[in-house]
Amino acid sequence: MIPFDVLASDPDSHARAGEFVTSHGKVETPVFMPVGTHGAVKAVTPDEVRQCGAQIILGNTYHLYLRPGLDIIESAGGLHRFMGWDQSLLTDSGGFQVFSLADLNEITEDGVVFQSHLDGSRHQFSPAHSMRIQRILGSDIMMAFDECAPYPAEKQYAAEAMRRTHHWAELSLEYVQKNGPLYGYDQNVFGIVQGGTYEDLRHVSAEYLSRLEFDGYAIGGVAVGEPKKDLRRTTELTASLLPEDQPRYLMGVGKPVDIVESIAAGVDMFDCVIPTRNARNGLVYTWHGKRPIRNAAYADDQTPIDEQCDCYTCRRFSRAYIRHLLNMNEILGHRLATLHNLHFFLKLTRRARESILAGQFSAWKNEFIRTYAED
Amino acid sequence: MIPFDVLASDPDSHARAGEFVTSHGKVETPVFMPVGTHGAVKAVTPDEVRQCGAQIILGNTYHLYLRPGLDIIESAGGLHRFMGWDQSLLTDSGGFQVFSLADLNEITEDGVVFQSHLDGSRHQFSPAHSMRIQRILGSDIMMAFDECAPYPAEKQYAAEAMRRTHHWAELSLEYVQKNGPLYGYDQNVFGIVQGGTYEDLRHVSAEYLSRLEFDGYAIGGVAVGEPKKDLRRTTELTASLLPEDQPRYLMGVGKPVDIVESIAAGVDMFDCVIPTRNARNGLVYTWHGKRPIRNAAYADDQTPIDEQCDCYTCRRFSRAYIRHLLNMNEILGHRLATLHNLHFFLKLTRRARESILAGQFSAWKNEFIRTYAED
Repeated sequence: MIPFDVLASDPDSHARAGEFVTSHGKVETPVFMPVGTHGAVKAVTPDEVRQCGAQIILGNTYHLYLRPGLDIIESAGGLHRFMGWDQSLLTDSGGFQVFSLADLNEITEDGVVFQSHLDGSRHQFSPAHSMRIQRILGSDIMMAFDECAPYPAEKQYAAEAMRRTHHWAELSLEYVQKNGPLYGYDQNVFGIVQGGTYEDLRHVSAEYLSRLEFDGYAIGGVAVGEPKKDLRRTTELTASLLPEDQPRYLMGVGKPVDIVESIAAGVDMFDCVIPTRNARNGLVYTWHGKRPIRNAAYADDQTPIDEQCDCYTCRRFSRAYIRHLLNMNEILGHRLATLHNLHFFLKLTRRARESILAGQFSAWKNEFIRTYAED
Repeated sequence: MIPFDVLASDPDSHARAGEFVTSHGKVETPVFMPVGTHGAVKAVTPDEVRQCGAQIILGNTYHLYLRPGLDIIESAGGLHRFMGWDQSLLTDSGGFQVFSLADLNEITEDGVVFQSHLDGSRHQFSPAHSMRIQRILGSDIMMAFDECAPYPAEKQYAAEAMRRTHHWAELSLEYVQKNGPLYGYDQNVFGIVQGGTYEDLRHVSAEYLSRLEFDGYAIGGVAVGEPKKDLRRTTELTASLLPEDQPRYLMGVGKPVDIVESIAAGVDMFDCVIPTRNARNGLVYTWHGKRPIRNAAYADDQTPIDEQCDCYTCRRFSRAYIRHLLNMNEILGHRLATLHNLHFFLKLTRRARESILAGQFSAWKNEFIRTYAED
């Protein structure tokens, strides 16, 4: 089991500051993980990701399996080496992408058959397939293969998907325990709680998975289109049901206020494409909310995106310049906005952590939510 | 007149190593100038351009006039400040783009009327307009407004365009002498020799312009579609007709072998989009020729683009990784290939310079041309 130390807990909420160590370094929680779908956090170098404060990033198993393919990544010595990232790496199971991106042909007790969204080629993913791929990717944290039911889902379907997820969780662990790591360093495995928006199913799922020998637990099946109140309710409930002494990871979340509220619910880890994708679309984050930087209002604005920000972009460039670059579809505009947004999200979880360690999380959280205008 | 010191000349050719100083720093020649069309060298930051070895870059007057427009750049304090580039900057006159990109409505003795390639809006450029724009851009070297005749052009048309270019050169100088610089530092002006592929016209043009008080001279109207032998012949002839004690700039060239041959002809300055544009298309340069890095042959090639190269890309990433990124259309792929190609082109002129200073230019040039396979 991955050693997870809770260093401080907030007295007024379930927020906690902790840390764990993988073979590629320390991860201080709460933590935000930038997403590197194709083996690169879009628009930025590994050095820049580190300079933004990232200690761990996420790679997408489905995408990397399709392109460049496993042979090439294994020949490089794993994904860390292939992409030049020497800190911690988490890979998802590929399940979510198979269910959301690919053309899904069949779900059985054994796994899924799907066609690639790139070329229509036919593939099969089972728990053993997913774990074998993640073993070759060489991630520090591998995710058990799961089925993420869509929203909305009938209770009967959500229960069936959950039951399959539990079966697949056992098969995933079995594969890992039988095969061991590929590159000589430890690879941890997290289980994923499912159950849709149904509280009784979440109870069953959290209890079932907690009995298995996972190194941490993820809350899956949220931020898939459900109303905000369901996202909050499901996150709070599921987090409260998971072991105290292991990391809790809320998959695919999210917006700054959701991250802060989820930290209060006891979540330790987050990943989301929001900072990078929104950057490329010209939405940049400030401590007062996000700004559509391509708007005409910024055409002659010679101030930085955020006066309070000390990122490379804000130290060097104006809103007017970044707006111009984005409007011209200049790659540098995508880069500068991405750097800024990543810096903001990583600073957000860093500030949450510092406030927990200082015993001031609730005050910090209230102030953040009061001054940050969520859309 | 900009002080231009010739530090060494090659005994076997017209190659020379020199230097001149603008208000934004020293420029050591022969020099390659990366192109920053929209106020950014595509895909890279000003810091990266400097780290690649650039001492001067080129901005495009036509593009910047249209977007973001002069008010915004003047409000930033000029193009250097707007884009965060603190070394030397050369701007073209906009003439070439008006003739090649825009929808040209009319050419008169006074200038041209054209419609923007972006939105069809109607604009007028005259020598005074072009110099006024470049004055607001605040470039260290402004180019006189010229007419670049297309290739092929009838001799009569080439002669007429040349005559207009001479008239406009005088009007350009007149505007600059009357108005002075805008931001408190010197702005130099270069004249542009035209005359197509007609040797007698080149003689007339070089002699005419040499009598005017320009700070340097450009060879215009080459690399516009003429056969390679005409490019070489026109460059050699025109360079030989220009003043010894002023910089000579070959506009829009070019390919590595053309650059090296033109250095031998006595050219000091070059600009071209080839390294940046080809990078984004997956053509990367090595000391043995260029490589189509997206080819399947590189799919599992874990070596750098060029073993001999010490650029950031070659120090950190493999051909297999860069190929994967480019095939996935990842911005990072465009960045890494751009960094490498810029590094190559800047190193090329740097090596030429060092070989001239060492008295070994001809040996270096022969070795380069022997080992570099031009397409």
